[in-house]
Amino acid sequence: MLLGRRLVAEALGTAFLLVAIVGSGITSDRLAGGNLAMELLAVSFATGVTLFALILVLGPISGGHFNPAVTLCDALRSGTSWRHVIPYASAQIAGAFAGAATANLMFGLPAVGLSGHARTGSGQLLGEFVATFGLLAIVWGCSRLRSPISPLAIGGYIAAAIWFTSSTAFANPAVTLARTISDTFTGIRPADAPAFIAIQLLGALGATALFAWLAPSERIREA
Amino acid sequence: MLLGRRLVAEALGTAFLLVAIVGSGITSDRLAGGNLAMELLAVSFATGVTLFALILVLGPISGGHFNPAVTLCDALRSGTSWRHVIPYASAQIAGAFAGAATANLMFGLPAVGLSGHARTGSGQLLGEFVATFGLLAIVWGCSRLRSPISPLAIGGYIAAAIWFTSSTAFANPAVTLARTISDTFTGIRPADAPAFIAIQLLGALGATALFAWLAPSERIREA
Amino acid sequence: MLLGRRLVAEALGTAFLLVAIVGSGITSDRLAGGNLAMELLAVSFATGVTLFALILVLGPISGGHFNPAVTLCDALRSGTSWRHVIPYASAQIAGAFAGAATANLMFGLPAVGLSGHARTGSGQLLGEFVATFGLLAIVWGCSRLRSPISPLAIGGYIAAAIWFTSSTAFANPAVTLARTISDTFTGIRPADAPAFIAIQLLGALGATALFAWLAPSERIREA
Amino acid sequence: MLLGRRLVAEALGTAFLLVAIVGSGITSDRLAGGNLAMELLAVSFATGVTLFALILVLGPISGGHFNPAVTLCDALRSGTSWRHVIPYASAQIAGAFAGAATANLMFGLPAVGLSGHARTGSGQLLGEFVATFGLLAIVWGCSRLRSPISPLAIGGYIAAAIWFTSSTAFANPAVTLARTISDTFTGIRPADAPAFIAIQLLGALGATALFAWLAPSERIREA
Repeated sequence: MLLGRRLVAEALGTAFLLVAIVGSGITSDRLAGGNLAMELLAVSFATGVTLFALILVLGPISGGHFNPAVTLCDALRSGTSWRHVIPYASAQIAGAFAGAATANLMFGLPAVGLSGHARTGSGQLLGEFVATFGLLAIVWGCSRLRSPISPLAIGGYIAAAIWFTSSTAFANPAVTLARTISDTFTGIRPADAPAFIAIQLLGALGATALFAWLAPSERIREA
Repeated sequence: MLLGRRLVAEALGTAFLLVAIVGSGITSDRLAGGNLAMELLAVSFATGVTLFALILVLGPISGGHFNPAVTLCDALRSGTSWRHVIPYASAQIAGAFAGAATANLMFGLPAVGLSGHARTGSGQLLGEFVATFGLLAIVWGCSRLRSPISPLAIGGYIAAAIWFTSSTAFANPAVTLARTISDTFTGIRPADAPAFIAIQLLGALGATALFAWLAPSERIREA
Repeated sequence: MLLGRRLVAEALGTAFLLVAIVGSGITSDRLAGGNLAMELLAVSFATGVTLFALILVLGPISGGHFNPAVTLCDALRSGTSWRHVIPYASAQIAGAFAGAATANLMFGLPAVGLSGHARTGSGQLLGEFVATFGLLAIVWGCSRLRSPISPLAIGGYIAAAIWFTSSTAFANPAVTLARTISDTFTGIRPADAPAFIAIQLLGALGATALFAWLAPSERIREA
Repeated sequence: MLLGRRLVAEALGTAFLLVAIVGSGITSDRLAGGNLAMELLAVSFATGVTLFALILVLGPISGGHFNPAVTLCDALRSGTSWRHVIPYASAQIAGAFAGAATANLMFGLPAVGLSGHARTGSGQLLGEFVATFGLLAIVWGCSRLRSPISPLAIGGYIAAAIWFTSSTAFANPAVTLARTISDTFTGIRPADAPAFIAIQLLGALGATALFAWLAPSERIREA
């Protein structure tokens, strides 16, 4: 598969992932009358199902990472070529910003509006560690299976983690960056993004190290 | 498979899709006590799951389009024969109206009641573009996979898009037309339908063009 | 597979189906504070997922009917032997009553309490016709597929139909009979059961006749 | 597969299961404004989906029990070696406590806080019997199928049973023990745990005995 096609697939998939997160957050915030649990339910459901569908259909083209932490860990285990890591991450981040801006525009908001949603504290950082550790554990587990329902496990895991972590499971540096530009339910204050991203990488590396021992000699299939 | 059987399958599937959309909208509107997020959750869930089941069981008979935009794009990529496009679209539209009328009757309403639900504005039109672009992207992606869970991706995508687009993801000209005859939660004012349909076709064609390059030489399997 | 084992599987499966329906109705009624949409969501979710799991694991033993209408229609298309129809239906009905009684007891209610929940009117009867017609359409469609996700389509269809039909989709004579003995959210007044059952059989026969033409020479696999 | 790896997989999986249960309970309790049905919905969804993903990816390593009752019953049917039962159960229990403590910490609570949540009475004990009987029935049924969607049936069953049993379906001695150390929505008073565990084992043994007759000569695959 030509690199150009793969980068378009990564950008398109990450864009739709952000449309799903930010868009469902705005819809539910407008309709739920302040019921935050209902809002989180909508975001959890829309995000998980969309991620499942995107991995299923774009995975055979680009690997379906949509996440720089996944691309980096895959390179560490000799999946993705190191020379593709920067292009992949760039496509993911560009797609993520385009998706967040599209969601804003769909709902009549300015394409870019800095979020004022504070997300901070050691509890939330532990939440991001757990969320990203778990995501990479599921990813590495799935990479051994070649099961047709692997994409359902990854989408489902994220939908669940949005509920069970204290940080609502960003678990993705590209997603974290792009959510700074939507001042809505799913936004994050720019000042809080760097710590989220750092701890996400730590969690991803931890799970990758564990699974290198737990399930050796397998790696995420590069399409 | 004889054309007659295929047209009955398309009409039956599109009818049940409309029963699901309009019926779940009426039930939830009566039970939710004005909680619009709960109403949308019911419509999203019932629509997505029904579409999944219909594509799974009727797909092998007719292709499981239930959507003139899908039939048209499939013809453009040399799947559906051009001489079947009008019969398919007619069966879909007739089935859609029959389904909406059945839903109305089940709930004690007149079979036909023009909707007064305004759905307009550039934000919602962008929403329909995104919704239909994404739907065709998923459809074209699935057409390459021959995975047993492809129907789940299509149904799931629509369930999610109902949340994440500003227009609640009609994404289907036959559905749009038929929803004009139910003056209930999921209806659409007749005057607003043409713009929805035009932008849906634009989104569908855009995704079809992109995937002709991104994933060449594949097409929706005709049963 | 010996008939005894098959009858136990049918009784066990139908019992758990009733536990799911009646039990989830009682839990949600106690917790939802009068929010009927939330109650229906719980019943829809619990019923659909349980039916999916039961068909998946008991289907290979008994066929996974759990429904006299399915058994009858399968006999009409030369699947189930006619001499097994009465034993199957008896096991289903006995299991259904045992399940409803178990649910009552779990929640501290008398094992048997006649329901006062009126369910009547031509709209609801049309709802039952649509629900059972659709169920048998999905069943006959799945019987041709031998897909690993067929059970998900049947469970999912019922979960959706609980929302989109005006009668909340009983679609099963054994379920209808057993729900007369629980005076709770999912109950039905004994006087209203016969009409529900009659129209269910009509809907089931209609779909069976249609699919005999639409998808000929296939039948539900007898395990 | 080396025993060390299998025990780590069991501990890791049970830990994430408890993170999902306890964490989703805390999130929903904080956001739902006292709507207990919404809280149960969040716990049901997060628990079921997480269990599905964990069984899918860790099942090939350790069998994916995450439950001493499953390990014990598997040993009775000559699956798990008897000399592995204590190590498996120990890993599950240690993982469960670690998971509950992690969930507490993520949300700014002390790692260990004894629950004051009373769960008692014959109705709830019958609920636990039904929940665990059903779980083992699904597990034994799935063990015969080698279907790719078996993990979905197990996770889905638990999600449904949380709604349909009067005890919210603990169905797992390791889970029961660990939920004593979180004084939150999903906690259980330590004094109530022994009866829950005893009746869980009874339900598990009952289903195992029944399926030894109903579906003979099959056993849970040891990875």
